Amino acid sequence: MNLLSFLSRRGTAPVARERLQILLAHERVAFGRSDLVAVLREEILAVIAKHVAIDKEKVKVTMERGDAVSTLEIDVELPKAVRRAVA
Amino acid sequence: MNLLSFLSRRGTAPVARERLQILLAHERVAFGRSDLVAVLREEILAVIAKHVAIDKEKVKVTMERGDAVSTLEIDVELPKAVRRAVA
Repeated sequence: MNLLSFLSRRGTAPVARERLQILLAHERVAFGRSDLVAVLREEILAVIAKHVAIDKEKVKVTMERGDAVSTLEIDVELPKAVRRAVA
Repeated sequence: MNLLSFLSRRGTAPVARERLQILLAHERVAFGRSDLVAVLREEILAVIAKHVAIDKEKVKVTMERGDAVSTLEIDVELPKAVRRAVA
């Protein structure tokens, strides 16, 4: 499944970290509004920060701009939630 | 490349539509904060709507909640931008 491969493509061993990954892809057929992902980046980060305490050093943002598709990837390691017994 | 397979997995022929796709994945290691993607859904849609005129019928939202990973997929067909000559 593509989504799972997206999640696992970093190839890291399972680590007990909670994280949030966001992938944006903007497919264009014409010019104009070309920086939509750039515009949305800060606002989406602000939305996340409203709900979880984000350590800026734990946020990885990757942006790629192609002719037809621009992509933005945000990877946030979340602070530990209140833990309960987890197998 | 996984990102491209994510983009192309609908298998549709190339159509001259502009669109924005957003994929959120929340990996949990503990309970609590389990509805982060649900919380972010409305706010992210609101952020997008601030910048582009969204036709609600052109927005497809898919949410899946698993034990360890919750995912949210938002697929927005954008209104036609001002067109210029595009090869």
